[in-house]
Amino acid sequence: MTKILIIGGVAGGASAAARARRLSEDAEIIMFERGHFVSFANCGLPYHISGDIKDRSKLLLQTPESFLARFNVDVRVMNEVIAIDRQNKTVTVKNLVDGSEYSETYDFLLLSPGAGPVIPPIPGIYNPLTHSLRNIPDMDRIIQTLQSNKPKHATVVGGGFIGLEMMEAFHQLGINTTLIEMADQVMTPVDREMAGFAHAEIRDKGVDLKLGTALTAVEYQISDQDSQPDNTGHLSLTLSNGETLITDILIMAVGVRPETKLAQDAGLQIGELGGIYTNDMMQTSDPAIYAVGDAVEEKDFVTGAQTLVPLAGPANRQGRMAADNMLGRSETYQGTQGTAICKIFDLAVASTGKNEKQLKRDGIAYEKVYVHTASHASYYPGAETVSFKMLFDPQSGKIFGAQAVGKDGVDKRIDVMAVAQRAGMTVEQLQHLELTYAPPYGSAKDVINQAAFVATNIIKGDSTPIHFDEIDKLNDNQLLLDVRNPGELKNMGFIDGAINIPVDQLRQCMDELPKDKEIIIYCAVGLRGNVAYRQLVNNGYKARNLIGGYRTYTYAQ
Amino acid sequence: MTKILIIGGVAGGASAAARARRLSEDAEIIMFERGHFVSFANCGLPYHISGDIKDRSKLLLQTPESFLARFNVDVRVMNEVIAIDRQNKTVTVKNLVDGSEYSETYDFLLLSPGAGPVIPPIPGIYNPLTHSLRNIPDMDRIIQTLQSNKPKHATVVGGGFIGLEMMEAFHQLGINTTLIEMADQVMTPVDREMAGFAHAEIRDKGVDLKLGTALTAVEYQISDQDSQPDNTGHLSLTLSNGETLITDILIMAVGVRPETKLAQDAGLQIGELGGIYTNDMMQTSDPAIYAVGDAVEEKDFVTGAQTLVPLAGPANRQGRMAADNMLGRSETYQGTQGTAICKIFDLAVASTGKNEKQLKRDGIAYEKVYVHTASHASYYPGAETVSFKMLFDPQSGKIFGAQAVGKDGVDKRIDVMAVAQRAGMTVEQLQHLELTYAPPYGSAKDVINQAAFVATNIIKGDSTPIHFDEIDKLNDNQLLLDVRNPGELKNMGFIDGAINIPVDQLRQCMDELPKDKEIIIYCAVGLRGNVAYRQLVNNGYKARNLIGGYRTYTYAQ
Repeated sequence: MTKILIIGGVAGGASAAARARRLSEDAEIIMFERGHFVSFANCGLPYHISGDIKDRSKLLLQTPESFLARFNVDVRVMNEVIAIDRQNKTVTVKNLVDGSEYSETYDFLLLSPGAGPVIPPIPGIYNPLTHSLRNIPDMDRIIQTLQSNKPKHATVVGGGFIGLEMMEAFHQLGINTTLIEMADQVMTPVDREMAGFAHAEIRDKGVDLKLGTALTAVEYQISDQDSQPDNTGHLSLTLSNGETLITDILIMAVGVRPETKLAQDAGLQIGELGGIYTNDMMQTSDPAIYAVGDAVEEKDFVTGAQTLVPLAGPANRQGRMAADNMLGRSETYQGTQGTAICKIFDLAVASTGKNEKQLKRDGIAYEKVYVHTASHASYYPGAETVSFKMLFDPQSGKIFGAQAVGKDGVDKRIDVMAVAQRAGMTVEQLQHLELTYAPPYGSAKDVINQAAFVATNIIKGDSTPIHFDEIDKLNDNQLLLDVRNPGELKNMGFIDGAINIPVDQLRQCMDELPKDKEIIIYCAVGLRGNVAYRQLVNNGYKARNLIGGYRTYTYAQ
Repeated sequence: MTKILIIGGVAGGASAAARARRLSEDAEIIMFERGHFVSFANCGLPYHISGDIKDRSKLLLQTPESFLARFNVDVRVMNEVIAIDRQNKTVTVKNLVDGSEYSETYDFLLLSPGAGPVIPPIPGIYNPLTHSLRNIPDMDRIIQTLQSNKPKHATVVGGGFIGLEMMEAFHQLGINTTLIEMADQVMTPVDREMAGFAHAEIRDKGVDLKLGTALTAVEYQISDQDSQPDNTGHLSLTLSNGETLITDILIMAVGVRPETKLAQDAGLQIGELGGIYTNDMMQTSDPAIYAVGDAVEEKDFVTGAQTLVPLAGPANRQGRMAADNMLGRSETYQGTQGTAICKIFDLAVASTGKNEKQLKRDGIAYEKVYVHTASHASYYPGAETVSFKMLFDPQSGKIFGAQAVGKDGVDKRIDVMAVAQRAGMTVEQLQHLELTYAPPYGSAKDVINQAAFVATNIIKGDSTPIHFDEIDKLNDNQLLLDVRNPGELKNMGFIDGAINIPVDQLRQCMDELPKDKEIIIYCAVGLRGNVAYRQLVNNGYKARNLIGGYRTYTYAQ
């Protein structure tokens, strides 16, 4: 009879426990959780605060009782494993209710402790109005503060998933909200020019977005001048730009750090990025101990390097796989792409694979394309622009990554790319994808097909691209040509220094253009630009086309 | 200078013309269209009739003038090519306005004539109230009839894409509607049990759906008894089931047939299925003549056999590719999966690859799984059940096809499967897919991951499936066990003869079950059934689990 101990009862741990029981009726399975709750919907926490998910109990997917009944798993909440004795294969457990300690033996141990919020050492940060959000008690405390203090202003520090979701929750509750982010963009999985769409959306909704700004000090104040009868105080925030901000509640969401103390104390190998080392069977440096989820380093699918990806999908699949392997199977984890999506008001922002920042940092040669095209047939109601970026190897066509932003169909396009990337398809092969098409759902040439056409044109030399960040550095041997209609220039603006010849008049006016200069063509999104580019090049001109057109250029500013 | 003639100015022809010009400024390109319009949105026609697309001009994507201005293509509408002289590389063209004839030479000829509606030889079928819908004039005539006759009842014959869309259009206009389909299901790309969801939706909306019924005779009647002052008459329809139906407008949408007359007269090879034969470069049996779109036979991606797939996506991509090849490149068409989707009121019904009917017909050994799971995290508002079917090779895990029905996220799941299938992934590899997940968009274990888990369990022998169509044929050595909660049996019904032990009580009650019989387990969708199955099998029982559970069984009835 195999005895399996599982530390941590949320995504990875709970998946492992259920799978282990399905594989074996004999195994003894004990799951330790130092908190009150197992298998809760941590991704749903901000949405209960916002009121989108009305019923708190919907977040509690399983209870110790339901786990016992269905899976015969001995779930011990409020029980913290405080030490591992690898030699004797035992753990020391502290019962957090009565403070007693006891030990349990194991044949296999699974570590699924998750990651904890990073709280930077900012003076004054520990105070009654500052919160982080990782679990049900955190959520309950925030809701309690909202109900008792009725804050008029909220501040969120950190523009990642939780920060963005909490920003939206506060806004939805009618609270004036400031979002502070140290980087020059929110949602770091996408590149800055793609985050530009999110920045516009956030500001459009009236949120005070402060990029490139850090929180440097916090002061908790209960002043006599406070007009509220029930004086709950407020915070005075000092920012790196010299500003001072008065706020009623502060959420710290700057990131998470793997919970590795237990593993470290037990002498298990910790990776360079600070996560528990695992091999591709999710085994730590001790073959009897497995680890999964936010606490581990895993293999990056694209580069093969170690990576930290604290997301629910990988955690769940790793947990299932670790159970397989503890019970004698041989399943290998296939690496993490980091596929992610975030709702930001009406927008979805999503990505998979590597972004441009990472490729630059790693010194990987890449090319990129942008397309902006309708989420479904543009003549059918409800179509929204999907802004799509694809990164690839200009030699082999290998897909490095993809990013998308828009109000409709963003998840679908990134899912398509996540599958294509995992399957090892090239951007050229994406031309042939045969996706669902009817006017309410797609287009005969989908976003992905179009991006593939543009990429393949570049790879085959049918198109010489120029990118938005080169436009402001043109020299005297280059001429900027806007091929949109005059009305578009008037309504939407144009790039300084451009001359305007609409694409449909280009053949007649071509003689006006110099053959000794390089013509830098742009249109709204790059499509007409390509038509103009091909005309010019086939007539002996030197030209380049702005990929993604004026739209990419504008949102990158 | 290459001279290219294109016959047909819609999807394939228009794509080819635009691509050809982008590749060459020198080429002379003439596009002949016997109708009034080029490059119109034929997929949008039913939605203009329904009023969803208000503005008719939105359906006219390009005009001869816009094609000339942008692509320098000589577009000749109302010009029908009536003969091809392959020897001399000329075509004879009839100007349909003045009846004159002339000829044009070519270096390359592209046939993109499309497919015409099949009108079965039913007595009385040609009358002023019977329509088909393939182009703008057809649409205009239907709208004209609706406006002048104000029909109270409409009949649609044929439950394919156009038939279903026209059914919905009439319903949306407040017209009582009957849909007649000769087969026992609508939407033949999916299997009958999946179409069951569509049948329920159609009947729920109040449409009179007659399956397994043929139209056998039509009588056009203008009777004195008609109470309308402006007597426009009506049709008396005789049906194969003996019924007579009085209707005010009749749409014939039983299918389309490739337009091959011109190709046939020119001695080009016609395939066994009745489409123009092409090789994988989209070349006909005459190397100077290419053909694309609804008129051609193409290679089935899964089986490699010839197939006829009259859909817009393949037509567009084939047109682009034919242009490449006419201008000296060497692009090969990679086969058609037949990925398709149809909106049926609030439902989407979609599929890719082969369905079970086709696999049976072709004698291909297959296995199948069903899952019914939420389109996104079930605790977040707006989640809808996606009912998903996947067909695969039980030996190799090769994906044969997939089908999905539901109110949300159906297009996305079939797109994922279309990519995975095209990339040659196995169902086992689908377990590892890393798709976008946040509560508003997906689940940590997506529909596809879950289906892959079920399929892999079967392949690995971790699950012995039973399917819905075997349930009514159980013998005395089998025992039917419902593992849902008693409340579910009461509210949703159950299968006759089942005993009920809720999954969470199974361990305690297991002794009540006989070890000499095969226990046939079912739950709502198959998930708890699998938990129960694993318990029983790991305790030495013989068991099988109903894949897709009671939901699949019910909708298959």
